[in-house]
Amino acid sequence: MPKPAAPHPTAEDLARRQREISVSEFFLKNRHLLGFDSPRRALLTAVKEAVDNALDACEEAGVLPEIAVEIVQTAPDRFEITVTDNGPGIVRAQIPKIFAKLLYGSKFHRLRMSRGQQGIGISAAAMYGQLTTGRPALIRSRTAKARAAHEIEVTMDTRANKPVILQDRETEWRPEFPAAPAAEGGSPEPPAVSEHGTAVTIALEGAYARGRLSVDEYLQQCAIVNPHLRLHYRLALLPKKGEADAGSEADAATAADAAGEWRRWRRAVEELPAAPIEIKPHPHGVELGVLIQMLKHTSARTVRSALAQDFSRVSDRIALEVCARAGVDPKASPARVAHRESEAIFKALNEVKLMRPPTDCLSPIGEERIVAGLRKEVEADFYTAATREPAVYRGRPFQVEAGLACARPGAAEDIAADEPARLLRFANRVPLLYAAGACAITRAVTSVNWKAYGLTQPKGALPLGPLVILVHVASVWVPFTSESKDAIAHYDEIVREIVFALQECGRRLALFLHRRHREADAARKRGHIEKYLPHLAGGLRAILNLDDREEEKVRRKLVELLERSRGGPA
Amino acid sequence: MPKPAAPHPTAEDLARRQREISVSEFFLKNRHLLGFDSPRRALLTAVKEAVDNALDACEEAGVLPEIAVEIVQTAPDRFEITVTDNGPGIVRAQIPKIFAKLLYGSKFHRLRMSRGQQGIGISAAAMYGQLTTGRPALIRSRTAKARAAHEIEVTMDTRANKPVILQDRETEWRPEFPAAPAAEGGSPEPPAVSEHGTAVTIALEGAYARGRLSVDEYLQQCAIVNPHLRLHYRLALLPKKGEADAGSEADAATAADAAGEWRRWRRAVEELPAAPIEIKPHPHGVELGVLIQMLKHTSARTVRSALAQDFSRVSDRIALEVCARAGVDPKASPARVAHRESEAIFKALNEVKLMRPPTDCLSPIGEERIVAGLRKEVEADFYTAATREPAVYRGRPFQVEAGLACARPGAAEDIAADEPARLLRFANRVPLLYAAGACAITRAVTSVNWKAYGLTQPKGALPLGPLVILVHVASVWVPFTSESKDAIAHYDEIVREIVFALQECGRRLALFLHRRHREADAARKRGHIEKYLPHLAGGLRAILNLDDREEEKVRRKLVELLERSRGGPA
Repeated sequence: MPKPAAPHPTAEDLARRQREISVSEFFLKNRHLLGFDSPRRALLTAVKEAVDNALDACEEAGVLPEIAVEIVQTAPDRFEITVTDNGPGIVRAQIPKIFAKLLYGSKFHRLRMSRGQQGIGISAAAMYGQLTTGRPALIRSRTAKARAAHEIEVTMDTRANKPVILQDRETEWRPEFPAAPAAEGGSPEPPAVSEHGTAVTIALEGAYARGRLSVDEYLQQCAIVNPHLRLHYRLALLPKKGEADAGSEADAATAADAAGEWRRWRRAVEELPAAPIEIKPHPHGVELGVLIQMLKHTSARTVRSALAQDFSRVSDRIALEVCARAGVDPKASPARVAHRESEAIFKALNEVKLMRPPTDCLSPIGEERIVAGLRKEVEADFYTAATREPAVYRGRPFQVEAGLACARPGAAEDIAADEPARLLRFANRVPLLYAAGACAITRAVTSVNWKAYGLTQPKGALPLGPLVILVHVASVWVPFTSESKDAIAHYDEIVREIVFALQECGRRLALFLHRRHREADAARKRGHIEKYLPHLAGGLRAILNLDDREEEKVRRKLVELLERSRGGPA
Repeated sequence: MPKPAAPHPTAEDLARRQREISVSEFFLKNRHLLGFDSPRRALLTAVKEAVDNALDACEEAGVLPEIAVEIVQTAPDRFEITVTDNGPGIVRAQIPKIFAKLLYGSKFHRLRMSRGQQGIGISAAAMYGQLTTGRPALIRSRTAKARAAHEIEVTMDTRANKPVILQDRETEWRPEFPAAPAAEGGSPEPPAVSEHGTAVTIALEGAYARGRLSVDEYLQQCAIVNPHLRLHYRLALLPKKGEADAGSEADAATAADAAGEWRRWRRAVEELPAAPIEIKPHPHGVELGVLIQMLKHTSARTVRSALAQDFSRVSDRIALEVCARAGVDPKASPARVAHRESEAIFKALNEVKLMRPPTDCLSPIGEERIVAGLRKEVEADFYTAATREPAVYRGRPFQVEAGLACARPGAAEDIAADEPARLLRFANRVPLLYAAGACAITRAVTSVNWKAYGLTQPKGALPLGPLVILVHVASVWVPFTSESKDAIAHYDEIVREIVFALQECGRRLALFLHRRHREADAARKRGHIEKYLPHLAGGLRAILNLDDREEEKVRRKLVELLERSRGGPA
């Protein structure tokens, strides 16, 4: 009997097709979620992940960061990027997992501000490199002077999300950083060799373009919010066709890139930012399901001690109160708590009065440093910054900072007819370049009524004028809208804090603009007085038959009178 | 000696903190990525995932789908949703993994159009339910009349992304669907009991609101693009405070909801859509890294047979040609191919001329059914639809369909002064409700020049008027911008095809509007003729001294003459 064509599958047939999907298979197919959707963005994302990791490692180990970023074009659509840092280095056994396993790291489970938080970034960059060039990632790392450096080539088995080590050898490698010529009024920086640090090299398919959303823009903004960073950058592009005809300024820059000269950002400060302290979860940010899991997995022997030990702001006394309210025996074993009891504890935890979570888990940039960063970057007449007090969303502390720089602010009219303000977005000191439209920062900035501060603003848009607006959101867990970490999700609490910070800056801007306006007004009035008073005095002289001295006296008295009447300097 | 306060950690300290992150831990912390960021959206997302799964299962097993969606409010912020289908059922061993393990399923690894593709959706809904209520998911399923049904309660161990079975028993359960009263001119539908099917019940924190972005809107749009679906829907809300004062229409609806009556959508067609056929990857959509992995893991014994066997559109002859171009021995073992050789094969595969991938992996709705769906939904004077030929992005087939419904189209002026058109977005027959701004469909619709078709359109926005625009993108792999699958990423090829489909509809609309305009014009002219001709005839009668019969004849001749001169019916 012939088999019927394509019979419909049964439940058993369907069952045979079910299988596990590894997280690397998932993200390989969905690489646009990780920021690798176009060659240009891929290049930026790879550099960004490597630099963010380097900065985190340096700061955690208490090392003033020095980082070198090298991008070498090896074919029209291929680049080799190397990011070298002077951080603490990585012990040999961890290297393969950190660079060739998605969802692996130290930052995910900790409540503490850091740039990385997902355990995806750098291994995703290596995975993308492997996908597009078939090449392994090369990592060199040294943890101390006394130790040898390790040089490891690693790829990912994407079917299992596991590293495959291709090379693993000891070398004499040390991180080296290029010398810098003397800046104006400064001294030259000698080439530096560090006793410890890490360098990662990834070959990938990419595209380089100058300007907005470029690696250059990212590094520049990085330098603004990390004034303690010494950064070196070298871009070596293949010569383009027809390069010989070049003559313009842009072409000169291209020529420099083709030559591959090192550029650098110096440190503006020589101290590290305050190190953020890890905190425990705050009960008001813990969902019922998480509470149940925490009680199940706690190392504490009683419910009371589990609450006091595993949560932030729950003292032994409060733990006792919670148990009493919930009608749960404080000496009960946490693993044996019934569902109804968990619900009761959950309810009680949300009813008792608790201090807000501690905020030393955050390390804001600070108003002074924001203004300093803006001064370095933006030529303007007015600078201000506001760092808000820490706040809480879903039990997680966060803190918002805003900065403003305003050029040519002579009069409000002056600012009006221009381009939209330039918005610089940062989360945990990392510049956010893509997906501005989806970001809570953009929503907050456009929802502020900038007209109240003397600016022009199209409805629901950025204010117009030669203005730079900077917003920094720092949190133990920044709620990004996607794994590529380009935009912050719209939590009301966060949007509100951003608005408050911007309004604080806006009010100061308004005062400044108002004063400027008044001064311009006064100058104009004074002009009128100076123009017409002599004629008035001359008229009075003719009528009253005054002599020269008397006329001069009358003129002077009139000036005094008018100056007083308009409230100017007596 | 006292220990110094908080010394900086060494590389070894840092290494001890590194650990694996389970994919469920990741998504638990990032649940907004899965569409569970607000209570309202969470309710919609959970229903959507369950219904999408039910539809996929029915269609795959060749069953005309009947689905019942029941939403019962159990507390002000808690709901229990149950989705029952008459699909093939799920074998017992698979149930826990399907509902309590992220990244598990049958659709991810297949190139074939289906609603689900990630292996995340329904287990994410169960995980969210567990997170917010601590409750397990309850699944009942029967695969055939002869078999007992299984009733399983399962939660997820989110630290390990593994199911934990709480209950597992056999029952006599059968999927039951409520009877429907007779529709106008139709017969009543009796209550149905199926011999096989699945019901999933999830308790979760949620919020219900009518209108845009509601479960109701989702189900309604679902019925439009799935005319072969019989759908039942019951919403039982707790009475609100002050409900007694109710009197308006909305309150009447609320009262019905509180009573929890079943609403239903009947089938418009009694046939299933054509079943899509699974295809192999097309070489032009395979990246170098994937090629290397495929060669490594192939079951074929030679490179030549690996190419011919594992790829779409690579015949044995083409495989041989590719090997020749690449300078690789066609008889070589695929696992032993060197990196340089893989690169050469990759290059050769991209140089040889290949047929485009087969397109029977897609199952478009079809122009006729789109128009039928729109007719059911939208009261309008003009309907049209266009189904494009399949196209390819990154080696993956996709197909675009568009539909238009236009009400009161008498004259272009009529349409102008109104609200923006209503845009219905669909991907693989699933309505997309959230994130419209980020979607390739929105970009395509706003980039079409609707003015050319007689509509008013603000710059870069949707056209205005009583207009419904429907766009359906079908693909073996829809590139969503996030795991919550609300918006399609901006691939140029996809945007272009959507634009073409819309332009096709737009041209037909323009013809229709033009004809209408001309007819209105003609009617106006005929009015003039009918008004003035009797006077003209009367004047001629007086001048020429005609009798009644002669005057009537002159009048008739004049009418004929004028009708002919303006090209009207002779």
